[in-house]
Amino acid sequence: MHAPIDFYFDFSSPYGYFAAEVIEDLAGKYGRSVLWHPILLGVSIKTTGQASLSSIPMKGEYSVRDFARSARFLKLPYNHPKTFPIATQHAARAFLWANDRDPLHARRLAQDIYRAYFVEGRNIADLGMILELATQAGIERSALSEALNGGAIKERLKAEVELATSRGVFGSPFFIVEGEPFWGVDRLPQLERWLAEGSF
Amino acid sequence: MHAPIDFYFDFSSPYGYFAAEVIEDLAGKYGRSVLWHPILLGVSIKTTGQASLSSIPMKGEYSVRDFARSARFLKLPYNHPKTFPIATQHAARAFLWANDRDPLHARRLAQDIYRAYFVEGRNIADLGMILELATQAGIERSALSEALNGGAIKERLKAEVELATSRGVFGSPFFIVEGEPFWGVDRLPQLERWLAEGSF
Repeated sequence: MHAPIDFYFDFSSPYGYFAAEVIEDLAGKYGRSVLWHPILLGVSIKTTGQASLSSIPMKGEYSVRDFARSARFLKLPYNHPKTFPIATQHAARAFLWANDRDPLHARRLAQDIYRAYFVEGRNIADLGMILELATQAGIERSALSEALNGGAIKERLKAEVELATSRGVFGSPFFIVEGEPFWGVDRLPQLERWLAEGSF
Repeated sequence: MHAPIDFYFDFSSPYGYFAAEVIEDLAGKYGRSVLWHPILLGVSIKTTGQASLSSIPMKGEYSVRDFARSARFLKLPYNHPKTFPIATQHAARAFLWANDRDPLHARRLAQDIYRAYFVEGRNIADLGMILELATQAGIERSALSEALNGGAIKERLKAEVELATSRGVFGSPFFIVEGEPFWGVDRLPQLERWLAEGSF
């Protein structure tokens, strides 16, 4: 039995969206399962003292171009959102709640949220939008709505983000397998070699 | 006649070293030439308001691990230098002076400087070391020494760095081909698709 791949992502991260589209197929090829962990990149950014990518002079403009080109490179649809980045607390909390109940529903929800934001330009910061997407993914709307209005799920997300930070996660996507950290969708070729050949 | 590839690099950048080892073969495969441009990443870092990579909490530690793993992934030798990063003005100026006279000598010098620093752990901030490496690369020591002690080459490097910044260069390695910018050795697969298929 191989260790699963821990996959950390922020719902406002284009590279996280790309990773969410491909990680299950990659993992499956090597008999690995994937544990999905939504994080809040804003918290990591504070920890590392960095600015939001798109706000950095030169790097920000380059990044917007790179998001779209990387999507074409990976043959994934992409429309850069008008509002970017965006608050992802509701999305992350809904994922966590759903994942405790049915990981398959939760993964479908994660991919639907990403596509709603990065393909259809929908406002995934909005609680009503998250509930609508959750319903479409087969999740019970009223129970989720009640949970998202409670305090427990907020504490849960906070603890999950702190745990990720304590493991050295500072970006999205971020993968950990057998203790080895891989940051960025552009590290998937290295992750794949790790899965295929072991430590290299 | 295809446009050449502009290749920007800092002699203190591990990813720049990796790129310097592979870019000529990649370009040659598609009938392209490469124009080598040493830059000073410290200047770009000031422009974008960022900190030096290795000084950033979490990201810095990850990066040191990623340098070594990326080298193994690319099957290149790598020993993380004890002093890192390091001042690269002498190296960049020597390259510019040599490149005006003989680009082949200059490229050999660039690769020798990179290997001296990232494989052999030598102090490439030292002027004497640069002169020694230049001599080995077939460059006339006394003429280079005289040039490096003059003011013209300092102004020249300053102007080259400003020009690079004006073109949007903020990292190392950085490539521009037909106006399209590619940042990072991990963008070489995208650059290769561009060379093979044109704009995508």
